[in-house]
Amino acid sequence: MSILPISIDAMGGDNAPAEIVKGAEAAAKELNVPVVLVGQAEAIGQTDLPIVEASEVIAMDDEPGSAVRNKKDSSLVIAAELVRDGRASAMVSAGNTGATMASALLRMGRIRGVARPAVATVLPVFGSTPTVLLDAGANSECTGPMMVQFAQMGSVFAQERFAIAAPRVGLLSIGEEASKGTPLVKETHNLLSAAPNIKFMGNVEGRDLLTDEIDVVVTDGFTGNVVLKTLEGSAKTLVGAIMGAMVSTPEAKEAAKTLLPVLAPIADEIDPETYGGAMLLGVNGVCIISHGSSSAKAIKNAIGIAAEMVEHELVDKLSKNISPAE
Amino acid sequence: MSILPISIDAMGGDNAPAEIVKGAEAAAKELNVPVVLVGQAEAIGQTDLPIVEASEVIAMDDEPGSAVRNKKDSSLVIAAELVRDGRASAMVSAGNTGATMASALLRMGRIRGVARPAVATVLPVFGSTPTVLLDAGANSECTGPMMVQFAQMGSVFAQERFAIAAPRVGLLSIGEEASKGTPLVKETHNLLSAAPNIKFMGNVEGRDLLTDEIDVVVTDGFTGNVVLKTLEGSAKTLVGAIMGAMVSTPEAKEAAKTLLPVLAPIADEIDPETYGGAMLLGVNGVCIISHGSSSAKAIKNAIGIAAEMVEHELVDKLSKNISPAE
Repeated sequence: MSILPISIDAMGGDNAPAEIVKGAEAAAKELNVPVVLVGQAEAIGQTDLPIVEASEVIAMDDEPGSAVRNKKDSSLVIAAELVRDGRASAMVSAGNTGATMASALLRMGRIRGVARPAVATVLPVFGSTPTVLLDAGANSECTGPMMVQFAQMGSVFAQERFAIAAPRVGLLSIGEEASKGTPLVKETHNLLSAAPNIKFMGNVEGRDLLTDEIDVVVTDGFTGNVVLKTLEGSAKTLVGAIMGAMVSTPEAKEAAKTLLPVLAPIADEIDPETYGGAMLLGVNGVCIISHGSSSAKAIKNAIGIAAEMVEHELVDKLSKNISPAE
Repeated sequence: MSILPISIDAMGGDNAPAEIVKGAEAAAKELNVPVVLVGQAEAIGQTDLPIVEASEVIAMDDEPGSAVRNKKDSSLVIAAELVRDGRASAMVSAGNTGATMASALLRMGRIRGVARPAVATVLPVFGSTPTVLLDAGANSECTGPMMVQFAQMGSVFAQERFAIAAPRVGLLSIGEEASKGTPLVKETHNLLSAAPNIKFMGNVEGRDLLTDEIDVVVTDGFTGNVVLKTLEGSAKTLVGAIMGAMVSTPEAKEAAKTLLPVLAPIADEIDPETYGGAMLLGVNGVCIISHGSSSAKAIKNAIGIAAEMVEHELVDKLSKNISPAE
């Protein structure tokens, strides 16, 4: 690939730096994507990949705003600066989510005209393309015009990432009728009905998220984050209960062995690592926020997706499809 | 049992009246609970149970407010009036949810001091008592003082329904810190910290809902309804995918037979029918809102729970544990 390297926050995440470095090495070797590691060379250890030294580390539980302000030489901040300075084409971090958003926003800036960046997450749909949910947590308070931009950015992302020609956009509410929901939802429903560059289908409900009825679901960052964590929690609980039952008797254990090959693809599809992480849409560069628990596999996938989005000129296409913010 | 009969909306729900009548008959016979069916005697057909005639039926898709205003002789409205008039001790309906809430609110009225009734739903927790989530959809707009009352009512319900001595109350947000969330969530966090008659543990996240970390989760009716439907949808999707995989090959099919006995209890526990329905807390009487798709089993369970809550004097205990609404 003839793109600038992807800058990787080597120090961010529960399994950093070891798993991050392994994932970056796998991406470089298997996917042929150029990468640059950002972090403490000593902690990173032996690797063939280029390293940009960053002396500080933002911890997973640091307060995001002050961490980004005070730790100017942190791996996260430097990773974002490489993109800003044209030395990298995208950034990937499994570190502190709030600090990743703040670093990207403060160092790369916003795409011209974007009121607020949004976190777009990918929800699996069995037997179909995934559903893009946004905002999944960047903005706990939203306005209607902001959510129109989320719909437009989510549509571009669904097009470029999953090759969905005309993504169907739904607004998350508590009933299909335009009259249902909070005042913000009702206002946004009206704005989306008249918004350019999207195919608005109306309101959708929580039960539609994992179905092939919709491609992009728009909501405020509070509701979106609650929904995302609810989904993660319920999948974990249910899978845990099923796994537990499957080893509860010797007969069940034996039968479970036979079922493993048919159940494995399901586990794979709901595994967040498959999708590499969430995308911060609206900042002036490609930024992937990977799960804190990311393994090497998740990081490799994230880097692959970042490179693909750079090649698709995602940022340029986003900037051409948003309505002016009010 | 020496309580007044439970009034059953015989005409409400996707499977009404046949399944409703069957469930009521089962409750009367197996649980020894007195019941009265409300609806069109002709449609109800042959039964040994007492019937109170109601000539009209509120359809599942009727607009709730106008339906309750205009169909004064509907089974739903009459079922609520029986409670108001001291002819029944509780009501159960699997009909139009909005109309059930409106009938109960307009005919029974609120408990003195309650600002707004809330829908309390029961979420399964494997190996522990369930989590009570409220408001699950009665009020898409809430205030802090309303949510304090939800916390107090949810605590009483968790005590009476699941014998949890001091239910741990959490506020649904997007992070544990008191500083996380919308302005409403932050305000409510402060109010809950000082509220009497509850054991407030702080903020919880979507991933905590199905765990034994918390007993009562408080949220506004918009977020609560989205979360509830998200959980229903994800359970359905995941169980569907697993069931599909289990019959995808002859070997898998054979192995699945062995696993059925260990998996059945899990399916049972996440089956909404096990819990009979949601409870409308804050109206001046026991009111259970069953799922539209309720079978006879769900209705029987709902009636059993209604009778239990009447015997526990739930309404009286709710009235004694709420803070004044502002």
